Amino acid sequence: MNIFGSQNRREDSDFIVTPWTVEGEVDYNKLVERFGTSIIDDKLMERFVRAAGEDHHLLRRRIFFSHRDLDKVLDDWENGRGFFLYTGRGPSGPMHIGHIIPFYFTKWLQDRFKANIYIQLTDDEKFLEESRGLTLEDTLKWSYENTLDIIAVGLDPDKTFIFQNTEYIKNMYPIALKVARKINFSWVRAVFGFTHESNIGMIFYPALQIVPALFEKKRCLIPAAIDQDPYWRIQRDIAESLGYYKTAAIHSKFLPPLTGPVGKMSASRPESAIYLNDDEKTVRKKIWVAYSGGQPTVELHRKLGGNPEVDVAFQWLKFFFEPDDNKIKKLEEDYRMGKILSGEMKTLLIEKVTAFLEEHQAKREEAKELLHLYKYDGELAREMWKKIHV
Amino acid sequence: MNIFGSQNRREDSDFIVTPWTVEGEVDYNKLVERFGTSIIDDKLMERFVRAAGEDHHLLRRRIFFSHRDLDKVLDDWENGRGFFLYTGRGPSGPMHIGHIIPFYFTKWLQDRFKANIYIQLTDDEKFLEESRGLTLEDTLKWSYENTLDIIAVGLDPDKTFIFQNTEYIKNMYPIALKVARKINFSWVRAVFGFTHESNIGMIFYPALQIVPALFEKKRCLIPAAIDQDPYWRIQRDIAESLGYYKTAAIHSKFLPPLTGPVGKMSASRPESAIYLNDDEKTVRKKIWVAYSGGQPTVELHRKLGGNPEVDVAFQWLKFFFEPDDNKIKKLEEDYRMGKILSGEMKTLLIEKVTAFLEEHQAKREEAKELLHLYKYDGELAREMWKKIHV
Repeated sequence: MNIFGSQNRREDSDFIVTPWTVEGEVDYNKLVERFGTSIIDDKLMERFVRAAGEDHHLLRRRIFFSHRDLDKVLDDWENGRGFFLYTGRGPSGPMHIGHIIPFYFTKWLQDRFKANIYIQLTDDEKFLEESRGLTLEDTLKWSYENTLDIIAVGLDPDKTFIFQNTEYIKNMYPIALKVARKINFSWVRAVFGFTHESNIGMIFYPALQIVPALFEKKRCLIPAAIDQDPYWRIQRDIAESLGYYKTAAIHSKFLPPLTGPVGKMSASRPESAIYLNDDEKTVRKKIWVAYSGGQPTVELHRKLGGNPEVDVAFQWLKFFFEPDDNKIKKLEEDYRMGKILSGEMKTLLIEKVTAFLEEHQAKREEAKELLHLYKYDGELAREMWKKIHV
Repeated sequence: MNIFGSQNRREDSDFIVTPWTVEGEVDYNKLVERFGTSIIDDKLMERFVRAAGEDHHLLRRRIFFSHRDLDKVLDDWENGRGFFLYTGRGPSGPMHIGHIIPFYFTKWLQDRFKANIYIQLTDDEKFLEESRGLTLEDTLKWSYENTLDIIAVGLDPDKTFIFQNTEYIKNMYPIALKVARKINFSWVRAVFGFTHESNIGMIFYPALQIVPALFEKKRCLIPAAIDQDPYWRIQRDIAESLGYYKTAAIHSKFLPPLTGPVGKMSASRPESAIYLNDDEKTVRKKIWVAYSGGQPTVELHRKLGGNPEVDVAFQWLKFFFEPDDNKIKKLEEDYRMGKILSGEMKTLLIEKVTAFLEEHQAKREEAKELLHLYKYDGELAREMWKKIHV
């Protein structure tokens, strides 16, 4: 059964990517090779953009850079069968900007392809991860808080179903049993690095993260950071034997932490991330001390130029906050030539992030009134509460 | 964590008892030692009978022979705190007489102590046991059929809650997560003999069988065959850390198979058991060919006498079907002296079993109209559907 070896967990390597850990400086080409996914090449990207009828800078700039079966998703779209979207959130604390970007991209996908979206809040998993020390009350609270942030993104309330595992478990349990019966301990040990000391809740949990990729008898497309891919590998191995499609996936890179180009943003280092509820003063302060690609003095910077490759402010603008390609190109060149100072780059990012958060936080307030639609009363939610998945 | 060693699974031994296997001729004294339970001594039995206000032949004859903390259950009863009862059924097929006897005893306990009873139908477990080859539709069907047999026993519909795991999972899942977080793979491997090839559903499942022993903040008393004890050992190790009581248990021996005094009755050998839906002709036929303690010819039997210790017909009468101690004593003596022939013993058992099944089957018909009370509408059931166990 151990067909994946332990390719996702090479502790002897320069970087580690698992659903629970990202360490070191990630080499995305190597990661694609390790995980056995495919780079989105120019031809596939053009086909994707053509089908969508519109471009998106997260695609154009290869932030979403890797995939599984995206070509088959486009086949299904073109022949009228369509597809559905699935993504999720582990409600272990407040969400930061790195968490929300995939949801903005998911919304774009929904708008362009009119697809249903299922969003799983894994309150069970975050409780079961002992090292987090969270109670179920904590993960319930964060499920609510995170749901408001997700709703603020503006997904279609009649085509989106947001659910917590502890609340939706009855509807998922029969098919979760069918999934679980096909997965043995050896397999989850190889894929996730579980040991004999892992608790039996964590060992069972992968079944529940796989289930939503079987919610419809269509192909599922999962837009998520690449660290979640191990779950989809298992889904792809068992889906057809259960009468469903192998899921497709489109994988994003990690938004670099403010502290520099190593690892990913982490709740244990609040200075590494901008949280969606950070106020303007905090945003300013965090970005101001962020890792920079500039020189030690203005004189040297003017003379030698900065390095945009490691400058977090520039990288954030390129990753998400400056959609205009011409502007990004000019910023990069000017920074490299020393025409733009690190402080100027940071000031620009602060403006963009502040404006983004202001709008997000306003929509988050409105989300409180809309929540019932996404969870219970919208068209898709109503359908989903009637379904027992078998 | 491995405090129990592999005491419940000594493959090198003359007999094996686990929740899934009973092999060989069980030495109950040795089993009590292996499992670390206690024999119910005369003093405890007298105290139990005094509290109950009435004797029961299953106690008197030490069919229920072993216990954990039964003395504490009686303390709780005497000081007015009370206790609750929990037992269950794995719905993998039709129930036989060996399955139903503990339910009759449980009913007696309820009548005497006015205690709530929770009855778990483990439709998930029976699906997850791959070797059975059952579908979820099968275990759902058997849950319904078995529930009718259980209701036929005559439990109090306002103090009894019968539930299937797949149906009641949402109410149990939060506390199941808390239980699961306290149990690691090493532990379930040691207690149940799971391996790296065990599926992740089976590995998680023990959490769900432990949960009902935490349904009330009182002591739980579990009347069940002794093979289920490994679950209760784990419950006892974690209950207090979750703010609950260690469960108590009262363990029965196995009704010997018709095929002789080795192992237990098994669905894979239908001739080894009398099923609750067997008709009179089948009962007669099965008992007629049952393993006997008699001699090869009538002449030899009259001369040498029979051996009641291995005579299944006599053992069944003693186990359950002849509650009158004087009659049992006389049957035993007369058989030993050759005054009663094996055929006469069998005829007596056939009469008793036939009368028992006739009454049971009639009550089972009535059960169809009562089912909603035990599952949804009785006083206890209504309360239970409102509770999320945390």
